[in-house]
Formats: sequence, C-alpha cells, structure tokens
Amino acid sequence: MEVFTKERLAQVHERIKPYIHETPILSSALTNEIAGCSIFFKCENFQKMGAFKMRGATNAILQLSKEEQQKGVVTHSSGNFAQALSLAAKSLEVPAYIVMPSSAPQVKKDAVKTYGGKITECPPTLKDREETAQKIVDEKGATFVHPSNDIEVILGQGTAALELLQKKPYLDIVITPVGGGGLIAGTALAVSLFSESTKTIGAEPFEVDDAYRSLISGKIETNESTNTIADGLKTKLGDQNFPIIQKHVQEIIRVTEEEIKNALKLIWERMKIVVEPSSAVALAAILKEPAKFKNKQIGLIISGGNVDLGKLAELF
Amino acid sequence: MEVFTKERLAQVHERIKPYIHETPILSSALTNEIAGCSIFFKCENFQKMGAFKMRGATNAILQLSKEEQQKGVVTHSSGNFAQALSLAAKSLEVPAYIVMPSSAPQVKKDAVKTYGGKITECPPTLKDREETAQKIVDEKGATFVHPSNDIEVILGQGTAALELLQKKPYLDIVITPVGGGGLIAGTALAVSLFSESTKTIGAEPFEVDDAYRSLISGKIETNESTNTIADGLKTKLGDQNFPIIQKHVQEIIRVTEEEIKNALKLIWERMKIVVEPSSAVALAAILKEPAKFKNKQIGLIISGGNVDLGKLAELF
Repeated sequence: MEVFTKERLAQVHERIKPYIHETPILSSALTNEIAGCSIFFKCENFQKMGAFKMRGATNAILQLSKEEQQKGVVTHSSGNFAQALSLAAKSLEVPAYIVMPSSAPQVKKDAVKTYGGKITECPPTLKDREETAQKIVDEKGATFVHPSNDIEVILGQGTAALELLQKKPYLDIVITPVGGGGLIAGTALAVSLFSESTKTIGAEPFEVDDAYRSLISGKIETNESTNTIADGLKTKLGDQNFPIIQKHVQEIIRVTEEEIKNALKLIWERMKIVVEPSSAVALAAILKEPAKFKNKQIGLIISGGNVDLGKLAELF
Repeated sequence: MEVFTKERLAQVHERIKPYIHETPILSSALTNEIAGCSIFFKCENFQKMGAFKMRGATNAILQLSKEEQQKGVVTHSSGNFAQALSLAAKSLEVPAYIVMPSSAPQVKKDAVKTYGGKITECPPTLKDREETAQKIVDEKGATFVHPSNDIEVILGQGTAALELLQKKPYLDIVITPVGGGGLIAGTALAVSLFSESTKTIGAEPFEVDDAYRSLISGKIETNESTNTIADGLKTKLGDQNFPIIQKHVQEIIRVTEEEIKNALKLIWERMKIVVEPSSAVALAAILKEPAKFKNKQIGLIISGGNVDLGKLAELF
C-alpha cells in the first residue's frame, strides 16, 4: 500500500482549492436533540455540480501533465462522477469522454452534455463499459479516471474531511456513506493523517451492504441486488480503496430503507437543505445506534444534493 | 404615521438577537448567470421554526411588560405565525393561545402543539377567528398579536433586511414576497432607515395581487379568490403596514403560477435549499423583468422553508 502523508493531502487540497467551493458546515439544534449528539454537517450538496465528486475529479485532472491533459480524460459512470469529470474538465479546458450505458436516463445524459462531456453510449454491462472506455484510451490517448478506485480521486475526496477537521478539530467521529469507496477511503485517510483521536465510521444500506461484508470476509464482495433508494451507493469497492478502508475505517453501520427515508425527511424538513438519499444514510446510522454516538462530536459528510424533483413522491 | 428611527430598529434587533438565528446569506454563480444580476439570498428558511416570522413574534412578546407576558399572547393564524408565536412564547416561558379554524390541516395543528401553543378551534371565517381571539383576550387578559398588522411584528420582520444590509451595504434593491404585508413593510422600513441608495421591491402572484391593486387604488384591496401555490401570500394588507408600504416600496411585480414553479425549481435544484413557494415568488419577479435588475446587486429575502413533503408532487 502506498504511503500517504499529511503533506501530500495538503498539496492536493491546495491544488484543487481554486476550482472547488469550501462548502459550509451546518448544524441543527433540533437534529442534535433528536440524535443525542452534536453533528456537524459538511455540506457537499453545496459543492459545484452538487456533490463531493467534484473534488476527486478535479484532482485527477490537475495531477496529469499538460500533455496528458490535452489528450483528455475518460470515465464510465452514469451518475455524479460523469458530471463531475465533465465539469472539472470543462473549467480546466480538457476534453472529457464519458462512457454511459444506453439505458441511462435522458436527464443524466443531458446533465453530462450541459457540463460539456462527450458521451459515448454502450450496452449496459460492466464489460461493455470497460471495453468502450479502453477503446477511447487507445484511440485518443486519453487517461482513464475511475470514479472511486483511483488514488488521486480518493485523495481529492478526502479534502472534504480535511476542511471539516480544520474547522472542527475536536471531532470524535467522522461518518460518511459508503458506495464505491472513494469518499469513505479519502475521508478515513484524511482523518488518520490529521487527527489522532478521531475515528471514521461508514454507513451503508442493508440492501447494498457489500462493503460491510467485505470488511468481514477480507475480500471485495459484490451485491446480488441493489434495491435501495440510496442510488449513489450501489457500486462495489475497488483494490485501491479497499486496503485503506480495511486499515482506517472503524466499522460500517447498516440501515434499512425505512431508516434512510426517515433520516432524509428529517434533513429536508428540519435543516431545509436538499440532499440525496445517499447522504441520509449516514444520519440514519447515527439515529440507529444512539448509544455509540451519545454526547459525541460528529462530523457527517453530506455527499450531495442531486435529486430528480420529478420523482420526489418516491422519497417521501 | 409613527416615526421610526434607526435607533428603534437597532434596539429591536438587539432585543431579539439572543432568541433568533442570524441566518446565512447565500449566493449561486449559476443563478446569477441565469438572472443577469448578483443575488444575495437572506435565508430565513434556516431561521428557527423555518421562517422569518420568528423575528416579529419574538419582538412582539419581548416588548410586553413582565405582567403582560405572564398573561400570555393570542393570535389567529393557521400558518407560520401560529407556530412562530408558539415557539417564541415557549422559549420566553409565556403562554400562547392560538385560534385556528377547525378546517386547518392536522399537520399544522400538530406543529403548533409541538411548539407548545394552546389551540382553540373555531369555525373557518374571519369573523369567528376574531371573536374567538377577543374572547381569549377578555378572559385571560392575554395580549392580541396580529401576524402582520402590528408595529412590533413589522419591526421584528425588518431585522432580516437589517442583517442583510449590515453584511451587504451596497445593495441596489431588496426584494421580498408580499403576503399580509409584515415582511415587506419591515423590510422597506429597514432599507429606508439604513441605506439611502437601496430600493425595496415587492413580488406577488397574479392570483393574489391585492397589494399591487392596493398601491394603485390607494386603499386596502382584497382577493376574490386565492388560487396560488404560494400559500403564505393569500392574506391582505392592514392599516398598520399599508402606509409604510405606500411610502417606502418602489413597486410590486406580479408573477404567474408557472413562473413561481420555475423559480422554485431553480432554487431547489441549483441552490439545494428547501424553500416554500412564497419565497420563490421574489426570484420569479427578478427572472420576469431582467432589464430592471440587470447587473445590479440584489438582496432577496427567502421567507421560509416550511413545505409539506407529502405534497411535493403538486409543486414539481
């Protein structure tokens, strides 16, 4: 496993700072009262493009050479990372090639186009996505950037926790949702480097508890089905982020769909912020195991706020 | 008309400060790009109880004598003010009697109860509401506080604009939605007292354009029907706030329901904050008349964020 230092993560932060927002940290007396602890919400829903993924995407591009940048970047994603890489590439004047399954919703394709990404459609299997991306790498000389299993992406995502710890150095726990593993790995790295007394905990829906099972079995597990409203958390871990998670994540707490919905409602109703269901998974974990968090100072990374307003009836 | 001074409004602000939030001011590069001007959103959706009405309610109670406070306060309202007066009274340990029409939704009755208000139900006519409130005044010796037509309430609402001008003294225009007239009157007063170069503009749905027509006719007009999604703006002006509005409000811009929905969607989707439809009316007015606001510095009071999540399908 690579050696990571405070200096390296601080450099990543300095590098991406001009291109990202330092997002606000909110807290809510009422939510604290309900949860029985003090929660500081790091609001990456207010990040450019509406999610933390802007951080990793920006870092992945910025650490390329000028020559590599000119040839562009490529990823396969149908979610936030496709938009993040497109927007980051646009502001850095780098071509972004996005491989998307032909079955992806039109709204997601449109979002990528809005941000200037060049879409190549492919059949909706992982094999097709990988092969199509590889073809673009071969033809264009573009650099492949994985949405979550790439060290520069992971370090970029870790800067959200770094900012949180700079403002709130006395946190007992930092908690994030777990999807492909980029956010939790980056967060756990940042926490381990910048605070000796802070622990990192992950939160995952029961319906896609691959990371929970991976920590138990010691190898990367997959999900048989992905029947969750937390649609950002359906992907599995990768060989780059899994060792970091194994080393630095204290535990993963699993929550039901009902618990996610209740936490989502609490955030929308009481905190008046628009967050995606994946973000509510972390609050749901705190509410599920109050004894574990009682009277503690908790940092919670709100992963993003991109929701389809036309489909809100499914959430509430 | 009463004489208002900077000192008096500043005193109101000092008096209520320990009991309210100084709400954040947000801006969005993308929204500015769309609107063609710089908008500073004063986010009263993050205020205690989710709306600016906390300010006026708190001031109305605080300026009572100890003896008056002990006897309690009474209002008739089925909306945010009932909750605001209940919560303000609770934190000041004052009884709050809330007259609500029996037809009010259970969710609103429950909210008032949660905040400790004592509900008296009455038939759903204004006459019944007024008589029931008067009965409580007579029996309990409680002080009646009108939701919008009360000078202390108006001054309290004006503190949101005061905070905005303290942080952004160079605003060309401050814009608010117009409902019962408390927010727009308080805002216009604060603006006239604290900034010579800033104008106050109101925004109102065509469907309930009583204030627009009142400014033209020179007397308080009413609405024949109230068919708008901006449910906080259905009430008419009063004899206390109308003269202030006549003197200090530059103009009122009217918008369609479609324009309100589009502005609402823009705020939710792009700014990731939960705001009530009434708040979107002010942004809709800016988007409707871009020439009037072009390249200007605009302060916009987001009135509140209390929406029924179960009914979102009606909004989007």
